[in-house]
Amino acid sequence: MKLLNETLKSIEPLNENAVKDAWKYLDGLTKPIASLGELENIAAKMAGITGNVHNNINKKTIIIMCADNGVQDEGVSSCPQELTWIVSNNFTRGITGVNVLADFVNSEITVVDIGIKGEINNTKILDRKIANGTNNMLKGPAMTREEAIKAIETGIEIVDNLVQKGYDLFGTGEMGIGNTTTSSAILSVLSGLDVDTATGRGAALTDEQFENKKLVIKKAIELNKPNRNDIIDVISKVGGFDIAGLCGCYLGAAKNRKPIVIDGFIASAAALCAYRLNPLVKNYIFPSHLSAEPGAKYIMNEIGLDPFLNLGMRLGEGTGCALAFNIIEAALHVINNMGTFDQAGIVTDYLIEMR
Amino acid sequence: MKLLNETLKSIEPLNENAVKDAWKYLDGLTKPIASLGELENIAAKMAGITGNVHNNINKKTIIIMCADNGVQDEGVSSCPQELTWIVSNNFTRGITGVNVLADFVNSEITVVDIGIKGEINNTKILDRKIANGTNNMLKGPAMTREEAIKAIETGIEIVDNLVQKGYDLFGTGEMGIGNTTTSSAILSVLSGLDVDTATGRGAALTDEQFENKKLVIKKAIELNKPNRNDIIDVISKVGGFDIAGLCGCYLGAAKNRKPIVIDGFIASAAALCAYRLNPLVKNYIFPSHLSAEPGAKYIMNEIGLDPFLNLGMRLGEGTGCALAFNIIEAALHVINNMGTFDQAGIVTDYLIEMR
Repeated sequence: MKLLNETLKSIEPLNENAVKDAWKYLDGLTKPIASLGELENIAAKMAGITGNVHNNINKKTIIIMCADNGVQDEGVSSCPQELTWIVSNNFTRGITGVNVLADFVNSEITVVDIGIKGEINNTKILDRKIANGTNNMLKGPAMTREEAIKAIETGIEIVDNLVQKGYDLFGTGEMGIGNTTTSSAILSVLSGLDVDTATGRGAALTDEQFENKKLVIKKAIELNKPNRNDIIDVISKVGGFDIAGLCGCYLGAAKNRKPIVIDGFIASAAALCAYRLNPLVKNYIFPSHLSAEPGAKYIMNEIGLDPFLNLGMRLGEGTGCALAFNIIEAALHVINNMGTFDQAGIVTDYLIEMR
Repeated sequence: MKLLNETLKSIEPLNENAVKDAWKYLDGLTKPIASLGELENIAAKMAGITGNVHNNINKKTIIIMCADNGVQDEGVSSCPQELTWIVSNNFTRGITGVNVLADFVNSEITVVDIGIKGEINNTKILDRKIANGTNNMLKGPAMTREEAIKAIETGIEIVDNLVQKGYDLFGTGEMGIGNTTTSSAILSVLSGLDVDTATGRGAALTDEQFENKKLVIKKAIELNKPNRNDIIDVISKVGGFDIAGLCGCYLGAAKNRKPIVIDGFIASAAALCAYRLNPLVKNYIFPSHLSAEPGAKYIMNEIGLDPFLNLGMRLGEGTGCALAFNIIEAALHVINNMGTFDQAGIVTDYLIEMR
């Protein structure tokens, strides 16, 4: 709890002077004011994060939190639980979606076993296992309060270590069969949205399975009575180790003043938890795509983020982050390399008119 | 007219067998069916374009059509006409927005003088000048029918030449003060949308200037009475050389079975013209971002395209295409490099359930 408390206290706002300087510089580039839209907003936000108008990304990685969910016993997913184990291992074999997209943008991935069911003998996976999956939240809390805190602190520590190694842009991915169920439960509790609105079909449920999934979420909330004003209580009762770990990653990135990108619905639910723990976290978070899961847009709205990409993706794993990395780096390339009005030979009269 | 007619006749549908084969292959990749959303659609469409399931982009360029518009005499833009000349030259100096973004994605640019007012002595700009800007459409047709055809055929020829040189992915950019006015006029005539809905503020007009812009468009349509069923009549009466040239680029790309990306509102208006001339053109067109100009979404809806990027950009120049190139290449990277279920160690029972 000490690391979590210290982290929450240490998160600071953006450097507003650097943001102002960045906007002054951006407004002097050879284009109508603000005509590069979000690319300019990204460049200015990055200035506020680092304190410098010009920035480059040196090393980037997508942190993939892998964990199992006891609620899978209730048939909330069409996939067998073993897929968590199989796909987590496949992340280290270079054949999954996130591998291919991370490779495309020259990003690394950091695979974490934060609670996969079963033994993982894979030196390429960070062993931070808290338990062999969570408990079935239809029979009691998914995890203890202590486990929830430990999982969050694990995320903070992992980012701390990666920052020490020079990483300066993070993505958030996950693998955990059943984790759209836990994400919808968290969203419903934290936002007050009814379960039917907060829940989607995940990886292609039938109508019957979908109805069951919503019923399971309703019952788990009813049984555990999570306190919506106590984020850790919510995570421990109806969340998962993956969500808790990612929540810690956002907090860790914010503490270290490093940008971190949200992937899909599960990563969004984790971001909402981090944001509720300390709203200043928002300053360090970038969106990527709008997940096809219906709950994602409510989280984006609450945090006040507008996803860059509209690609109907719903794979998770951190796949959206890879594409967003490219957009962030494109924005930095713009502020670092575009010409100014002076260089452009556009004299002051025109300049004023263009503004 | 011969080249245009031949081009229109030669455009063929997608290779449906290759599209089917691509989907079969995509459905065997280690992910839930269709969970990579648009990335999968892109990969399948590319298969239909080339006839091969696996594709790579070898050389890409953004064709930037530069031209002046006589209607600028009516004060429809807050920028002076000379900016067309200045910025067109700046494209060859590496300092504009499209330069920086094209550089970011390893794309070239192809700058074309298709009707800039004034002499261009720049060997890096293709000289295809049809006239020193169009005529003021408030005093008669912007150009003759022959000029409109010549401008369209210029676009076709340029793509023909680039394809011969090995380019296999195209973007569409433009520079022409006043060209949101001509684009809104074309959109209004072709779609039947009222001018108020089809018209935006372009590069930051005041309220008064904005009212004037809409009035000018209404009067130009009233005066010239373009025949909405005759695309060339519409382009010649209320269009511009840049729009006509880009219209030709879409047709040329479709004829050559090469993918071509739409940038912003002006490029969208040109795409609408090409689509109306031959709806099969759609098969070769990819969207990029949704321009902040309000008319853009109507065109996307009519053609049936859903922009990949949501970045509030409104610079033009082809800037959105650069970012879309990355998404298209990411999609090809996915289909070319992701593992199959067999490789993933996911046995048939799971495979069926994942589907």
